[in-house]
Amino acid sequence: MAGALEAAGSGTTCLLFGPIDELRSAVGDSIPDRIELVDAATEITNSDEPARAVRAKPGASIVMAAQAVAGGRADALVSAGPTGAALAASLLQIKRIPGVYRPAIAAQLPVPGRRLLLLDVGANVEVRPEQMVQFAYMGSSFCEAVLGVERPEVGLLSVGAEQGKGTEDTVAVYDQLQAGSLNFLGNVEGNDLLAGKADVVVTDGFTGNVALKTIEGTLATLIGEIRARITSGTFSKLGGLLIRGRMRSLQGDLDPDAIGGAFLLGLRSPVVICHGASSHRAITSAIAMAARGVSEEIVAKTTDALTRAGVTRGDRDPSAVSVPAVSVEPR
Amino acid sequence: MAGALEAAGSGTTCLLFGPIDELRSAVGDSIPDRIELVDAATEITNSDEPARAVRAKPGASIVMAAQAVAGGRADALVSAGPTGAALAASLLQIKRIPGVYRPAIAAQLPVPGRRLLLLDVGANVEVRPEQMVQFAYMGSSFCEAVLGVERPEVGLLSVGAEQGKGTEDTVAVYDQLQAGSLNFLGNVEGNDLLAGKADVVVTDGFTGNVALKTIEGTLATLIGEIRARITSGTFSKLGGLLIRGRMRSLQGDLDPDAIGGAFLLGLRSPVVICHGASSHRAITSAIAMAARGVSEEIVAKTTDALTRAGVTRGDRDPSAVSVPAVSVEPR
Repeated sequence: MAGALEAAGSGTTCLLFGPIDELRSAVGDSIPDRIELVDAATEITNSDEPARAVRAKPGASIVMAAQAVAGGRADALVSAGPTGAALAASLLQIKRIPGVYRPAIAAQLPVPGRRLLLLDVGANVEVRPEQMVQFAYMGSSFCEAVLGVERPEVGLLSVGAEQGKGTEDTVAVYDQLQAGSLNFLGNVEGNDLLAGKADVVVTDGFTGNVALKTIEGTLATLIGEIRARITSGTFSKLGGLLIRGRMRSLQGDLDPDAIGGAFLLGLRSPVVICHGASSHRAITSAIAMAARGVSEEIVAKTTDALTRAGVTRGDRDPSAVSVPAVSVEPR
Repeated sequence: MAGALEAAGSGTTCLLFGPIDELRSAVGDSIPDRIELVDAATEITNSDEPARAVRAKPGASIVMAAQAVAGGRADALVSAGPTGAALAASLLQIKRIPGVYRPAIAAQLPVPGRRLLLLDVGANVEVRPEQMVQFAYMGSSFCEAVLGVERPEVGLLSVGAEQGKGTEDTVAVYDQLQAGSLNFLGNVEGNDLLAGKADVVVTDGFTGNVALKTIEGTLATLIGEIRARITSGTFSKLGGLLIRGRMRSLQGDLDPDAIGGAFLLGLRSPVVICHGASSHRAITSAIAMAARGVSEEIVAKTTDALTRAGVTRGDRDPSAVSVPAVSVEPR
């Protein structure tokens, strides 16, 4: 809520969806400028099966918010609810860009001196090569339009640098990206992720989810161990005080809160997904990122990039475009 | 070489394979007790295609060393050469335990307060569920026999804790492990790896390789950043000196060198693979680990565990056992 108020304060109109009493008591007596409250009595929780729940609960906040975007009342969607529900509601209401097989969740990782876009980090646990190829174009377009990186360097996550390394599918993706128009670096490995080798790294949602959580877990374990060891001795405790400022600035730089959320790419409007435990700062960043997606016309640019590259669903199989398909594997 | 000399000094007889002149000049004038030098004129390099090279170069050091194990002249194999060559030579000469589909590379990760066995980290980029089930039994046997952990806790790497999360294959593995005799914890996620949730974590060689390298890269990036920031200011530099002892002990605890190498499980003799850049300390540890694999009868115990669990190749398809199959996906 505080995040939305701050975003509204800096010029973005926010429609907030939820039980109206809760929204009113959070906002206070007078509703600020550029804030609209919309009553949505129910919600979809983590224990609901997303694809079923978004159909069964038309009055859920995420469904109503997605509907507002689909109907043109809002330009972008920001959700801090369950990822699966946001994905399912977006697929159902906002829909995919024509020719896109599947949306992908693109997470931004704070790499020293750079920012890394890793996708897919969990929208799709099973991914075909032609889908991963689309992810590469979608990620590159986003990186260029929203993050302002010119000709982003795109890598493919695999188990060796050489062209032939990886699964049959990753090798097929390599070949297609190599022949395409992106600034393709070739394969990158797990140890390259935080080393800042690429702007965009493409993988399937299973591997991407494992890699993302492995980075988060490794950082948390290491920082916890450092803290425990420093505070367990007198000299080192004093040393810890002397380095505290630097360590805090490092933690700030690595803090996912500064980024705010993950972008859901491949839909007809910008969608940003935040952690359920997101701070006010994270929500503010997420709203700013969604607004930037709108002003930089990320959807039009992505559509254009996919079409120019000839990697849309219609390019491969012209008869397939008219078949609607909604299937959801939640994160 | 220094590693082998140290191992010999503590009672393990080591046969060293390589060009005899190089071996002699490394050992010095008098050959120490429990060291035997064996002339192997050629070697297999990273640029060779492993499966082809081990057949084409019978005089290569890795092939001759594997042959010595297969022929009973040595009890275990330790290699610091290319992983693919060690794997191919082991498959060709030492061979798989009857009923094992594929060997797996089991890496030990230094987790604070625990040690984690992660497998497969790269022997097999494409893995069927029944193979992953075998990895679980192989890893658990190793953890019990060689690392001395009673009833090791086994986790399956996936993208969510709940039973249904993951790919079709990981869900199938979950169901089989759930119904089996291991101390199975269920799914673990990327952030659980270094958190010490399990003793053994099972995955396919693609995901495992990405996860392992992601951990290594994240640790390296974070430690590098901390060092850079601490040494860039006067106060923090002083602070850095005061915490240096603690930071060194932490780095020592997280140092893969203390572990020495990865075990290749599922073969008829113990095989340990080291990094090409392994230090003398790493080689000493690797030899000690291989020796422990021999004295603790890891092969017999693994065979027994697979048979008792009814997960051997013969249990699934009795006609399949007699078909020899050697196929190698190098790391």
